[in-house]
Amino acid sequence: MYRYKCIISYDGTNFMGFQIQDDLRTVELEIKNALFKLTNEDIKIYSSGRTDRYVHALGQVIHFDLENEIPPLGLKRGINSYLPKDIYFKSIEQVDVNFHARFSAKSKEYRYYINKKEYSPLLANYQAFISYKLDYNLMGEAIKLFIGTHNFKGFSSSSIDPRKDTVKTIYEAKMNEYDDYLEFIFVGTGFLKYQIRRMMGILIDIGRGKLDINIINYILETQDTNILFKTADGCGLYLYQVNY
Amino acid sequence: MYRYKCIISYDGTNFMGFQIQDDLRTVELEIKNALFKLTNEDIKIYSSGRTDRYVHALGQVIHFDLENEIPPLGLKRGINSYLPKDIYFKSIEQVDVNFHARFSAKSKEYRYYINKKEYSPLLANYQAFISYKLDYNLMGEAIKLFIGTHNFKGFSSSSIDPRKDTVKTIYEAKMNEYDDYLEFIFVGTGFLKYQIRRMMGILIDIGRGKLDINIINYILETQDTNILFKTADGCGLYLYQVNY
Repeated sequence: MYRYKCIISYDGTNFMGFQIQDDLRTVELEIKNALFKLTNEDIKIYSSGRTDRYVHALGQVIHFDLENEIPPLGLKRGINSYLPKDIYFKSIEQVDVNFHARFSAKSKEYRYYINKKEYSPLLANYQAFISYKLDYNLMGEAIKLFIGTHNFKGFSSSSIDPRKDTVKTIYEAKMNEYDDYLEFIFVGTGFLKYQIRRMMGILIDIGRGKLDINIINYILETQDTNILFKTADGCGLYLYQVNY
Repeated sequence: MYRYKCIISYDGTNFMGFQIQDDLRTVELEIKNALFKLTNEDIKIYSSGRTDRYVHALGQVIHFDLENEIPPLGLKRGINSYLPKDIYFKSIEQVDVNFHARFSAKSKEYRYYINKKEYSPLLANYQAFISYKLDYNLMGEAIKLFIGTHNFKGFSSSSIDPRKDTVKTIYEAKMNEYDDYLEFIFVGTGFLKYQIRRMMGILIDIGRGKLDINIINYILETQDTNILFKTADGCGLYLYQVNY
């Protein structure tokens, strides 16, 4: 048995997320189909974690096992030739069978982009567009409040399994302002379902003056799920890299 | 009768080009539908010229007439609210009834982009990707040969109407090299069907060493249509602006 670690990128626009859901067009299904064409085997794929509908990846990591050894460069060329144009294998390396895309991951980095300029149809799927005036300085201050080890239950999906451990550590959370867009960087041990989009949603609501900056610490401390705020659009979110 | 000049942008990825073709999804049809919802009138649209399937626009210009006057700012807000997210009206101004989007145009600027880095699914619809090694300096020299007044018949579609005037003037043709991509700028009185994509196709064939640089002058002088070269992908092409 030969294990392969792959770094992949995809444009999330036309996928119903990463994880297989019957016959819906998902990233996992397209990869399984390409691997089947290449090897004639039904190969199980393990990812560092799923991504939602519309969410992009520049450095998603997956692993899978093959019965027969294929040199990584040939495997990369072969699988890319069978994939649709919105998924790409950037690198493939053979790894020890103890490597696991999800359980070996030490941290993950996500980035979120907001268009600062006028609406552009060419950016509609790649940066969030907010029609309100935002206080960038306040958002840059607010994002730092997420740094540290907290119970992020209040920033996850309401449908989250109550037995799930919702205490996570965020090592880095910062905003960079560029001429045309805002970039938000989050590095942490792991993120709950919708967590980044909910954290971004509250930053946007704070930036437009709808919520006070102190609401972040309040939700982190109390896990109060009665505060209403938006879940930011998936199209602005990128799984940037997974660190092992 | 009130005439309006509009500057519009669109992401060409999911359109069968600009011009209406029955019920196919075209830019013109979406604009007509939005105008109908806004005014309850069937309004004829005049553009500076059509764009092909997959081709984008940052500054396409159209005009149309309304029976009843609507202030430009309200019209912009109204029509944008009825349009799908891949078309956007950047500006609308009321103009003299002698203005014509096509016949009043003095020149048009197109830009073409080629990705210089590794393939990226996130750029697949927005920059051409060439899997051959290209000689950028040679392409930068070759593009200058298009400047001037020439018979561009050899760089148009083979299906072009033989009565059509194929003599056009290109004022500016240059290549800019950036870290991640090449940018090609063409400014001219007007361009024939497929002309920019055919000029780009020959530049790519010259850049990869398949054709000699002298082939450009040969085709411009002889209009020989027996030289085989590619029509570059539409996805790299942008109608950048129309000058009046």
